[in-house]
Amino acid sequence: MKIHTLISPVSVEDLYFAGKTTVVIDVLRATTTIVTALSNGAKEVIPVSTIGFAMKVSGNAFGGKTLLGGERNAKKIEGFPLGNSPLEYSEDIVKDKSIVLFTTNGTKAIVRAKYSDNLYICSFQNINAIAKELAELNNDIEIVCAGSHGMFSLEDSVCAGCLIERIKNYTSDISYSDASKCSVMLYNKFKNDILGMLKESEHGKLLIDYGFENDLEFASQVDVQHIVPVYNSGVIKKKDTIQSDG
Amino acid sequence: MKIHTLISPVSVEDLYFAGKTTVVIDVLRATTTIVTALSNGAKEVIPVSTIGFAMKVSGNAFGGKTLLGGERNAKKIEGFPLGNSPLEYSEDIVKDKSIVLFTTNGTKAIVRAKYSDNLYICSFQNINAIAKELAELNNDIEIVCAGSHGMFSLEDSVCAGCLIERIKNYTSDISYSDASKCSVMLYNKFKNDILGMLKESEHGKLLIDYGFENDLEFASQVDVQHIVPVYNSGVIKKKDTIQSDG
Repeated sequence: MKIHTLISPVSVEDLYFAGKTTVVIDVLRATTTIVTALSNGAKEVIPVSTIGFAMKVSGNAFGGKTLLGGERNAKKIEGFPLGNSPLEYSEDIVKDKSIVLFTTNGTKAIVRAKYSDNLYICSFQNINAIAKELAELNNDIEIVCAGSHGMFSLEDSVCAGCLIERIKNYTSDISYSDASKCSVMLYNKFKNDILGMLKESEHGKLLIDYGFENDLEFASQVDVQHIVPVYNSGVIKKKDTIQSDG
Repeated sequence: MKIHTLISPVSVEDLYFAGKTTVVIDVLRATTTIVTALSNGAKEVIPVSTIGFAMKVSGNAFGGKTLLGGERNAKKIEGFPLGNSPLEYSEDIVKDKSIVLFTTNGTKAIVRAKYSDNLYICSFQNINAIAKELAELNNDIEIVCAGSHGMFSLEDSVCAGCLIERIKNYTSDISYSDASKCSVMLYNKFKNDILGMLKESEHGKLLIDYGFENDLEFASQVDVQHIVPVYNSGVIKKKDTIQSDG
């Protein structure tokens, strides 16, 4: 199994992902929020890459049970009932709802990877479930760090490294790209203090400035959810939900 | 002094660099080759981003004293007398010549950064000279890793980390972006075996396959040249040459 890691999705075209098995990571905060929403009973999350499309989709699709969520440069979007803090996505708010989500980097990365054969959503919170799924599939893997405006984000690379280390618990037949190797090193450097790493990261500092320090603590929790969110035809659902639908 | 590091230049537009102080690094092999050519007496190096432009420039500019050099995906280009191995750029070949250089990643990165106020060319070979220059300037810095087709390259990030550590010898007033921090960690991980790191890197392995193992050893030499190559109006010259011209 060859594991390749993209520091940011902007360096490749949409078709780069055709036929691939891909994992998108945006620890702060989109993929943490998606995992939280689905864990708390949301029916699905619809990631969108423009605010205009978010408005359009939310209007009349999905039987009116949609909720708009997201942020632009870490701030809530006017007219959107939900921001991008995972703490907002509690069971009483999201249960059975379709969440239309727009974020600056994370949902754009997911949409960029839409032609993947298999497309998973990963955060620290559900990392072991994703690792197990990938090891069982045993395909080559593209890990996509959402990054920040095309730039490197420490927390996404550390999470990528954590995912690779977890995959190694299930299979030893792995080869690494340079970026994968670097991610593993970064994870091993920070693994004993994920929260401290988030607080030291550029995006973490920005979120603290904006009053979202609690999001960092929440996003730093490793293996507290055991769900596998899968993107398919524009929609992210929990894997077991998809199976029981079929 | 804020030090920002770009894992690859493809995530930003040309105008991103307007007004900035920028350093381009492509250890394997473009910036190592440029430093070698200038150290061995080449009058200048003209980095180009297309082969067509290389042909055009070499034809009648610079009084006919031009030499075409470069590679496409690590292989020599048909009709070009020189490839991209620094070992080809010996004094008897390059002295007083204008070298027109096209490479897959390195010269494109330099051309991408052309609107910088100050634009330097760095390799392990001339790293301390560049560090000293940057510390004296005392501007914020953009370190651009050429990377590989928009992807992360281990050797360029390790070199970026080495450069930052050297700058720290001259000034302590430094703040880091996530990518700069990561580069410093990588450098400290590999600093005792730069050649081993090059051999383990993706691009290093490719070069070994293509018969260029000697280039790795050459590129791994730290601080053996003490020149500061500066890009200005399409041309790279040694800094003292520029001063004596003025």
